Amino acid sequence: MTKKLIVQKFGGSSVANIDRIKNVASRIASYKQHNQDVVVVVSALGDTTDELEALAFAIDPTPPDREMDMLMATGEQASSALLAMAVKKLGFDAVSLTGAQVGIRTDKVHTKAKIIKIDAKRIRKALVKNQIVIVAGFQGVASDDEITTLGRGGSDLTAVALAKALNADVCEIYTDVEGIYTTDPRIVKEARKISHITHEEMLEMAALGAQVMQARSIEVAKKYNIPLHVRSSFSKEEGTMIVQKNEKMESVAVRGITCNKSEAKVTIRNVPDKPGIAAKIFTAISKAGINVDTIVQNVSYTKHTDISFTVSKKDLEKTLKTVKGLSKQMNFGDVVADKDIARVSIIGSGMRSHCGVAAKMFQTLADSKINIEMITTSEINTSCIIDQALADKAVQILHKKFNLDQVA
Amino acid sequence: MTKKLIVQKFGGSSVANIDRIKNVASRIASYKQHNQDVVVVVSALGDTTDELEALAFAIDPTPPDREMDMLMATGEQASSALLAMAVKKLGFDAVSLTGAQVGIRTDKVHTKAKIIKIDAKRIRKALVKNQIVIVAGFQGVASDDEITTLGRGGSDLTAVALAKALNADVCEIYTDVEGIYTTDPRIVKEARKISHITHEEMLEMAALGAQVMQARSIEVAKKYNIPLHVRSSFSKEEGTMIVQKNEKMESVAVRGITCNKSEAKVTIRNVPDKPGIAAKIFTAISKAGINVDTIVQNVSYTKHTDISFTVSKKDLEKTLKTVKGLSKQMNFGDVVADKDIARVSIIGSGMRSHCGVAAKMFQTLADSKINIEMITTSEINTSCIIDQALADKAVQILHKKFNLDQVA
Repeated sequence: MTKKLIVQKFGGSSVANIDRIKNVASRIASYKQHNQDVVVVVSALGDTTDELEALAFAIDPTPPDREMDMLMATGEQASSALLAMAVKKLGFDAVSLTGAQVGIRTDKVHTKAKIIKIDAKRIRKALVKNQIVIVAGFQGVASDDEITTLGRGGSDLTAVALAKALNADVCEIYTDVEGIYTTDPRIVKEARKISHITHEEMLEMAALGAQVMQARSIEVAKKYNIPLHVRSSFSKEEGTMIVQKNEKMESVAVRGITCNKSEAKVTIRNVPDKPGIAAKIFTAISKAGINVDTIVQNVSYTKHTDISFTVSKKDLEKTLKTVKGLSKQMNFGDVVADKDIARVSIIGSGMRSHCGVAAKMFQTLADSKINIEMITTSEINTSCIIDQALADKAVQILHKKFNLDQVA
Repeated sequence: MTKKLIVQKFGGSSVANIDRIKNVASRIASYKQHNQDVVVVVSALGDTTDELEALAFAIDPTPPDREMDMLMATGEQASSALLAMAVKKLGFDAVSLTGAQVGIRTDKVHTKAKIIKIDAKRIRKALVKNQIVIVAGFQGVASDDEITTLGRGGSDLTAVALAKALNADVCEIYTDVEGIYTTDPRIVKEARKISHITHEEMLEMAALGAQVMQARSIEVAKKYNIPLHVRSSFSKEEGTMIVQKNEKMESVAVRGITCNKSEAKVTIRNVPDKPGIAAKIFTAISKAGINVDTIVQNVSYTKHTDISFTVSKKDLEKTLKTVKGLSKQMNFGDVVADKDIARVSIIGSGMRSHCGVAAKMFQTLADSKINIEMITTSEINTSCIIDQALADKAVQILHKKFNLDQVA
């Protein structure tokens, strides 16, 4: 068996209209012509997902999850059928399959189900018949034939999980950009496409603001060592390979820079500096279903301290309500919110072996008179919370300072 | 078990927008409040079916049937989910189910599958849990988990078949008109809503041009003696009951009048009057996939005769091509087409016992100087093909002559 198996995922923008669907069909056909087995995962057409959501929200602002899954799963079923028609029209045999038909078994957590296993029997049968298999992304089936969805970006997960189940040679993620960039090209015009990046680095990039792929599917690819190729459906150019490890990479301390403007900072003043206070605050916040990111508590030489932390802007109102609710019993000072912050992060697995990368970041910002409000670090990233108005400038000077504008 | 079970089917126009979906939800809820079990069958939202078809046709003018079913079935899945949300929002428990989830087993004839059996286990389980069940109409599942559809108007069939499988007390067909009328109210303003009609009469009405319900679902209702209630989703008025038999009906010779302007007449002149000629002609036409309706061949006293027949206007081109193809080998005269015809029919099971009904129709038309080009009769209908320009007038005078404008 020298025949290669390729899994290709096409996002909503790649199939936003009839012409694009036909374009994708040609692309798929060209791989088939090279005698490769092709399994395609497709998202819903263009804005379909948003349109279906709008209908649901017009009926109920908090629609029941089970019914949302029934509704949302139709988007991918429709696009898979249309794409199969377009491929067949080119003279290749193709068959569309829903998540249930493929046997993508999930748990019963509607709207964010986890894949339990994939029974790829039906796909294998189709491949033996030399059919191109078009799978409706983003969906699965739980016990009792219940239709589930995997959450936004779930089609990526479908593709990665199928690549694993079918032992595919490569998993291609087609999107509307050319690949993963050293930073957002809208902020830095010298941003370069990264040719290779590790799963680990990509995970950090996604977590810290890069929006090309969802973190969950990269995690799965990392776990099973599945190479991903992120590339554009509008060009034949190679995109970015996301791989386990690569020798060429060793010498690069910083692979990319992200900027995230979606967080807000909350500061609680004059918190009594007693054991267990922070635990109480963050337990209450977590119980309200709010994710907290960076937390900073200064060492205090008095009996009081300030605690600052960041949350997603959309959770800010709820956070303030929760914290102020604690205020009386815990005897805080003021609670202050700041929406005008940005998180600028440098990411690179080379940081492990390269000393002074973080220090260089701080110094670069200082040289440009950009004040750092908070800092967090992990093994392979350093993040600074700064004034949002200075964020683009910070990304630009860091991009230059770490030589990301120069071809590696 | 004195609890009644009601099956309700809502057509696309009844759920064409969010307000209408909410209106339907209230309606369903009101039945549930009267302690009835409710199973709802719903069509796709408004023009969804047409929109999905247009997408498919833009890719392939003759899209593969299997993929069409995958595509079209999404319309009803989406509307069933939205309706379930709207019902739940009113505080009633509801669950949407696809054809596959319900267990509507069909054969594998995609786009016009026949229901083989319904395994109503899942619905019964839901009813025991006091849930309102919202079933996606028009669809089923064949072996191999293949999604099938039942053809246009298939949601009616889903409703009737479920009413049978669940042994429902009544099956309500909600639509955008008040019920079945003695004739088209756009033609005759005195047209009255019929309170009761037999399955048999309704079948003829549907076959001869009344568009409220598809003939196939009425056939099934007739076969299993399922009473249907055709009524408006926009009013609380009683509509039309379609029942097996009714004593009150005996005295009415004519129940309704239909007018069908979608046919064309083809005349083949100077056909050699030899045995087997007609058989050859109509075999060729049938092999071309064309349905022929009324056929008239005059008794001939010469060696040649004229044969006339009607076909659907959309099949006219193909018919002429087929007939002209036979022309040389069979030595016909001219082949003439006439698109300006209409079929006017009077329908009533009372015709069986009332003599002279057909004669009265012919005389009425003659009195108004309307020439009859062709005639066909069955046990319970008489149809005349006449000049299309005179069709509305013919319907009006017949409606009056048979006293259909007077309350029975």
